[in-house]
Amino acid sequence: MGEKVRGYLMIIGGAEDRSGDKEILKKFAEISGQGKANVTVITVASQDPKGVGEMYVEIFSQLGIGHVEALYIKSRSDANKESVAERIASSTGIFFTGGDQLRITSILGGTKAYHALERAYRQGVIIAGTSAGAAAMSDTMIIGGAGDEAPKGNTVSMAPGLGLLEEVVIDQHFAQRGRMARLLLAVAQNPFILGVGIDEDTAIIVHPDGNFWVIGSNTVTVLDGSCVSFTNVSELRPGEPLAMCNAALHVLSPGLGFDMKKRKPLLE
Amino acid sequence: MGEKVRGYLMIIGGAEDRSGDKEILKKFAEISGQGKANVTVITVASQDPKGVGEMYVEIFSQLGIGHVEALYIKSRSDANKESVAERIASSTGIFFTGGDQLRITSILGGTKAYHALERAYRQGVIIAGTSAGAAAMSDTMIIGGAGDEAPKGNTVSMAPGLGLLEEVVIDQHFAQRGRMARLLLAVAQNPFILGVGIDEDTAIIVHPDGNFWVIGSNTVTVLDGSCVSFTNVSELRPGEPLAMCNAALHVLSPGLGFDMKKRKPLLE
Repeated sequence: MGEKVRGYLMIIGGAEDRSGDKEILKKFAEISGQGKANVTVITVASQDPKGVGEMYVEIFSQLGIGHVEALYIKSRSDANKESVAERIASSTGIFFTGGDQLRITSILGGTKAYHALERAYRQGVIIAGTSAGAAAMSDTMIIGGAGDEAPKGNTVSMAPGLGLLEEVVIDQHFAQRGRMARLLLAVAQNPFILGVGIDEDTAIIVHPDGNFWVIGSNTVTVLDGSCVSFTNVSELRPGEPLAMCNAALHVLSPGLGFDMKKRKPLLE
Repeated sequence: MGEKVRGYLMIIGGAEDRSGDKEILKKFAEISGQGKANVTVITVASQDPKGVGEMYVEIFSQLGIGHVEALYIKSRSDANKESVAERIASSTGIFFTGGDQLRITSILGGTKAYHALERAYRQGVIIAGTSAGAAAMSDTMIIGGAGDEAPKGNTVSMAPGLGLLEEVVIDQHFAQRGRMARLLLAVAQNPFILGVGIDEDTAIIVHPDGNFWVIGSNTVTVLDGSCVSFTNVSELRPGEPLAMCNAALHVLSPGLGFDMKKRKPLLE
């Protein structure tokens, strides 16, 4: 177990509170530097980049972020512009909105914008993402699979993610969309991967020491397959039901944490 | 660990196939004695007892059950009739339909019909139940709680069940209705209880030795809280998110089993 983390990540399960207490967004503003912050909202995942971008810019301004700007990246050529890379490089916090995680990776992957992002992350800049922006954080990401179904062969689709968080797979809108089966299948495919299911209006803050802490109003489900004694996943034909024995399951409420290196819950 | 089992139970997660292969109902017919069987369908859970009763009588007749009859119990006074108790006592297989599990327990609990049922069970007669009929099997049963929600204080309701299966709590329509949170809360409340979530068109056959085996087309989720190191369930106010660390999770496909005494999956 050696989940490789370098800087700070805030991974949000979608539908974070934007009108009430705004606990999660407030925390992002604080870690980004509040009045001294220079935040970039990246809307590349969204089909409505202007609408989503302006909404987050307004919320973050209200929360007292010094400077916040939405960056509209529409294509890989946009993502290779020096000005875009510079905008990312000058940020003290970067926020990925929701939408479609494949848009994030297919447009940013390998571009100047991506390299600027990774460099910023290594230097300690917080990278946040909600919904699709959360899913894209890991090495391998879940891109499809129905909720409220039994775990069966060929029912979850995965793709290479941004790779900011290694050896972990994230799922979001977790309890609200009944996504346990997706996480089970992802972990069964490689039990070395830690499965992290994040509920709506809930986030994990990942620290460089490899620990994460839960904030928000719901729960985070951690599925650790490292002790799995048996799985039939490699033999499954499409539609055949999964078997996986002896996984460890942790449900974490806000305030609790998890040591991804030792794979142990943290109570304080 | 000493889940107390006495006879044979078939616990079905609802929506079992009734028009195709009918694998689960066929197995029930077989265990009941097929041509020599005398099966009673108990429709007490249902709001449409005639419709449901006639449907199962027709299916079981087609499956070659020698004699099958629906028993319509509408009230506790019905359930205290000698004729009803005698009908149950003469059965080689008893099948509880779906509906509302509270109708089963509130109408049968402590009556002559219930005592006849328990006696039949002890003598080795198979007792089957689907959906509500499955939920009612255990000592304590789940009677309410929304699916597709995070596990939170006061979001699952429980009541005393028929008590045919002790130290276990059953949930049904499990993956299809996103009911992980209900099972988590039930197990957190008493980690000594084994949580068993049964998917639709899937069943467990419980043997007197305390082992069960999975049949059908989906999966059975077993949540074992006996190693839980921490839970906040006793301090939860309504709506506050659950924490539960170090539960064991098993997903069983058809053909696999589980030893409820040793709490170990059985691969053959």
